[in-house]
Amino acid sequence: MSPTVPERQLREPAPLRPTPPVDVAALQRLLDGPAFATRDRVRTILSSPEFGYRAELSDERYREVVLQWLRKLTAEGFGALAVPQEFGGGGDPRGFLAAFETLAFHDLSLTIKFGVQFGLFQSSILLLGTRWHHERFLRATSSGELLGGFAMSELGHGSNVRDLETTATYDAAKREFVIHTPAGSAHKEWIGNAAVHGRMMTVFAQLIVGGTNHGVHALLVPIRDADGKPCPGVRIGDTGHKEGLNGVDNGRIWFDQVRVPREHLLNRFGDVSAEGIYSSPIDNPAKRFFTMIGTLVGGRITIGLSALSAVKSALTIAIRYGNRRRQFGEPGQPEIALLDYRTHQRRLLPALATSIVLDIALSRMVDRFIEMKSGDTRLVEGLAAGLKAYTTWFAQQAITDARECCGGQGFLAVNRIAVLRRDIDVWTTFEGDNTVLMQLLAKGLLTGYKQEFAEVGVIRLFARRATASLRAHNPITTRRDDEDHLRDPAAQLALLRYREDRLLDAAARRLRARAKKDDPTHAMIDVQDHLMHLATAHVERESFEGVQEEIERAGPSLRPLLELLRDTFWAGCVERDMGWYMMSGAVETPKAKAIRYLVNKCIQELRPVAEEITAAFGIPEAVLAAPIASDPLPTAGNRPS
Amino acid sequence: MSPTVPERQLREPAPLRPTPPVDVAALQRLLDGPAFATRDRVRTILSSPEFGYRAELSDERYREVVLQWLRKLTAEGFGALAVPQEFGGGGDPRGFLAAFETLAFHDLSLTIKFGVQFGLFQSSILLLGTRWHHERFLRATSSGELLGGFAMSELGHGSNVRDLETTATYDAAKREFVIHTPAGSAHKEWIGNAAVHGRMMTVFAQLIVGGTNHGVHALLVPIRDADGKPCPGVRIGDTGHKEGLNGVDNGRIWFDQVRVPREHLLNRFGDVSAEGIYSSPIDNPAKRFFTMIGTLVGGRITIGLSALSAVKSALTIAIRYGNRRRQFGEPGQPEIALLDYRTHQRRLLPALATSIVLDIALSRMVDRFIEMKSGDTRLVEGLAAGLKAYTTWFAQQAITDARECCGGQGFLAVNRIAVLRRDIDVWTTFEGDNTVLMQLLAKGLLTGYKQEFAEVGVIRLFARRATASLRAHNPITTRRDDEDHLRDPAAQLALLRYREDRLLDAAARRLRARAKKDDPTHAMIDVQDHLMHLATAHVERESFEGVQEEIERAGPSLRPLLELLRDTFWAGCVERDMGWYMMSGAVETPKAKAIRYLVNKCIQELRPVAEEITAAFGIPEAVLAAPIASDPLPTAGNRPS
Repeated sequence: MSPTVPERQLREPAPLRPTPPVDVAALQRLLDGPAFATRDRVRTILSSPEFGYRAELSDERYREVVLQWLRKLTAEGFGALAVPQEFGGGGDPRGFLAAFETLAFHDLSLTIKFGVQFGLFQSSILLLGTRWHHERFLRATSSGELLGGFAMSELGHGSNVRDLETTATYDAAKREFVIHTPAGSAHKEWIGNAAVHGRMMTVFAQLIVGGTNHGVHALLVPIRDADGKPCPGVRIGDTGHKEGLNGVDNGRIWFDQVRVPREHLLNRFGDVSAEGIYSSPIDNPAKRFFTMIGTLVGGRITIGLSALSAVKSALTIAIRYGNRRRQFGEPGQPEIALLDYRTHQRRLLPALATSIVLDIALSRMVDRFIEMKSGDTRLVEGLAAGLKAYTTWFAQQAITDARECCGGQGFLAVNRIAVLRRDIDVWTTFEGDNTVLMQLLAKGLLTGYKQEFAEVGVIRLFARRATASLRAHNPITTRRDDEDHLRDPAAQLALLRYREDRLLDAAARRLRARAKKDDPTHAMIDVQDHLMHLATAHVERESFEGVQEEIERAGPSLRPLLELLRDTFWAGCVERDMGWYMMSGAVETPKAKAIRYLVNKCIQELRPVAEEITAAFGIPEAVLAAPIASDPLPTAGNRPS
Repeated sequence: MSPTVPERQLREPAPLRPTPPVDVAALQRLLDGPAFATRDRVRTILSSPEFGYRAELSDERYREVVLQWLRKLTAEGFGALAVPQEFGGGGDPRGFLAAFETLAFHDLSLTIKFGVQFGLFQSSILLLGTRWHHERFLRATSSGELLGGFAMSELGHGSNVRDLETTATYDAAKREFVIHTPAGSAHKEWIGNAAVHGRMMTVFAQLIVGGTNHGVHALLVPIRDADGKPCPGVRIGDTGHKEGLNGVDNGRIWFDQVRVPREHLLNRFGDVSAEGIYSSPIDNPAKRFFTMIGTLVGGRITIGLSALSAVKSALTIAIRYGNRRRQFGEPGQPEIALLDYRTHQRRLLPALATSIVLDIALSRMVDRFIEMKSGDTRLVEGLAAGLKAYTTWFAQQAITDARECCGGQGFLAVNRIAVLRRDIDVWTTFEGDNTVLMQLLAKGLLTGYKQEFAEVGVIRLFARRATASLRAHNPITTRRDDEDHLRDPAAQLALLRYREDRLLDAAARRLRARAKKDDPTHAMIDVQDHLMHLATAHVERESFEGVQEEIERAGPSLRPLLELLRDTFWAGCVERDMGWYMMSGAVETPKAKAIRYLVNKCIQELRPVAEEITAAFGIPEAVLAAPIASDPLPTAGNRPS
């Protein structure tokens, strides 16, 4: 039938490999990790009737409900999980992160309220403060007696924290700091817990001592008294209705010469003596700033974790529905389940694989974060930034797809997916705008490249990379299209690594060329889209290595499934960037076609066990809540033949 | 610095071409088209204070506000625009579509309410009914005296209309039809105007006469009396809170043996005599069904038009903000406008180009629709389906990007973008699920291919396509990377056409091979992802030809700008599918790199005039409404150096 291409080129597709079994318990153990007991406690609490899902509340009522939920969680001790034992806490930051992640199966406003109080406000006291602050405040914050917030962003400066305009000027005579909002765009904006419930804020401000600006530091500033009235000099506004997260009371704050005692400076990285002498353990102001900001990396990790929980809920609902909802088919035959359509599989099943790959990647990130020492933070921070951006963009798309796969049912609030989509939108721009975070990761990689270059020397670096390049360009490898090769993790990793290395190389060269005729900012702007690809390649290669490590550790009941999930993820990544791989010569046409075909093969192999895999997310039925995921679907009548 | 790639490969980038001037008036004339006067009337009405934007209304109140808005529009005669003059209308379907499109600058719930009443309910009477119906109902529907809806979808069958379960059984003794909802999933679902305001519905049901099922037909069925009480045998439910469009009162309807006079059958394509004899001008039942459904193509066109209006609002807001909001920069220098970042340009400016290309494509579609004759509808229907899907998916992504480009400000309801994003989500699945529509287009192309094959004969078709293929594979063309070649519309079109032809060819071959061992449905499922690419390629090639036609017609003040927009659109399409172009041999590495570079070049050339271009959308300031688009931004203080 084809006039241009001979029929013999139409290869008989290779048969599907057998679908691996799903050991749900083992997969859940892997995903739950060491903090499984904490997760189970949260699951039990969320399953109680008082946490029941409510599709439609006024903003005011929603804020109250979320506050009550928060109080319930603090009463159960979850607020104290990450606090050291000497201050009455659980000394279990890993448990805290696991609790946060599990909460996000339920309500994202509660998740963020919990995060503002414990992940931001309390953590800032713990990580930026010293013993004086810990002894005075941590018990009250962890019990929820003292609710607070994290007043960093200003209207004029969100991403660019270093140029915040709020000032904290030391008054040596009174041994106090004076917190002040200059006119214009300097007021604090988007501050969670500010509009109604918070009584104290960690305020970020330019620290001015004796006329010298020492850069951004954090101070504890009361904003409301015990009766909930704003403190003198503090003006508070309500952010108003948002397109999501309306259970969180975001607000704006203006300070008019507000005074706090000298001790309220969170002084771990910069202190002012009673006499007004500034001192810091870190001499370089830029390094000091980044060290301070670096302590906040935990916040970004929680954002990634919670986005992934939202994806898991949406996929579970959509996959269950797709398994039962039928539409179209041959006359006289039963209609076909949506999940048996290739287009439906293409939308849901690679996302299912990616969600498990990213779960493992984020767990590794948590391990590194827990073990992180001050000073040795660049790599952890960069990857945390990249994973936050990658995961939240993935979540946005995956939840959009899940909604569409449920049609009009997916648009109903009662079925939750559209609500998750709406809430999750802001995940891509808060706790660091995704684009800014990807650039941060890429810049970190460039710095590392420069250092490697300086340390190893040109000759050895050349030799090392040339070998890698040679391997990648080996004409046998670039053309191999047999399935054993495509599913060989060493070959898979080599391709991802080749992309990352080449992008890094080229970015460094382009930057160097540009820097000869432009300032560093504009040189960087000129390669920004390149840096986005570099950061993405880094996150994907790291994530791939994570899942491969788990495969090597896994028992026989889990290993084949993890391999299939890895193959699905890998083939999807390479398929998306096929243009680049071919331009760079690392993949030639036969291999490219085989990889494209592998994507379709993997999702067909996954399809029979998709719903079983979602069972391993361990989302309690009461929390899942969506009727289309659980209630029997009304049966359609017989079809005319 | 690079160890693996010699520096000489790093080409000096070619200089930017001069940014073309923007003749805002001429561009607006092009976009407004022949119905400009109607558009201006709608703009004036929408700018009046009573249409002012309200960010936060209860669902109940919102429905009332939208009804009042609708009444205002009918009072101004907009409901009668598409009705023939002999029934008191304006006889101006083009004006009706333009009004619909312009309304979508304002509030999408109003747009849909307007569409339900006039685009669906009233149009079904006009297009599926005959003189009896026209004389009796069109005056009342167009004045808004008779509000109604379009009861097609059922819970069990949304996309698959042919298998609806509602029955309309003819009772010859009483000369009435009996409308009935069988148990299970057969009730009408998601019906606009049903929950509160509608009094009559166009109900789609299996028409059963003398025990024979003649397939789906439409009948007019009153559901509420003049007091708003449900008619006997009619049960109505409220769809409840949705994640968007809450100004539309969607509902569910159950019919329990509801009787309507025989004349209520909309009998243009199928009639039943008083004695119970069925007759139809179209003998083949499948052809009859598709002809009936085909008349509804106008609905899909309005969905695309309105999605594009929402994109234009979102882009206008985001581009204005990006031009004024500054963040980061060199120490001591003013911060840099967001729109000067390459990443920001990459997100907003290709979308700006695409929105104008699609505007032109949809205008061409409107022309074809207005001139369409019954019978000659396959091509128009297929392209309308594909354009609806392509435009709404584009809208979803473009508005998401616009929201992110405005950061937290974009998430505030008052700034509208997030509200648009939320409302538009369902555009991708209503009036035909996008995936189903893309398959519909692809199947139409396959049918055409088969016919061409049969008519032209193997030899001539072979010769024709072989020539095209040869041209595409000419090693000079596949490698040419000079800008004159890349910006040559003939070369651009050849590449898009090559992709479409090849995909069509290959799909036909794959289907034929599969059909030997599987039923048609499962054979089709196996090539579904291929068909999605084919449909996309067709829409893009058609859209490209549309803009090129306008370029050839355009005066000198407009032409260079349109060329730049065309280049931006083209380069983006090809860049996205670069893997395929390289696999197929149509593009080799030097050309691939040059095309990637062309995307960045085009957006830099567009950047200085981006805001001017949005002025040509003609969105009134009062309708744009978002403070971040208009109010002065508070100035940031001086930056520390």
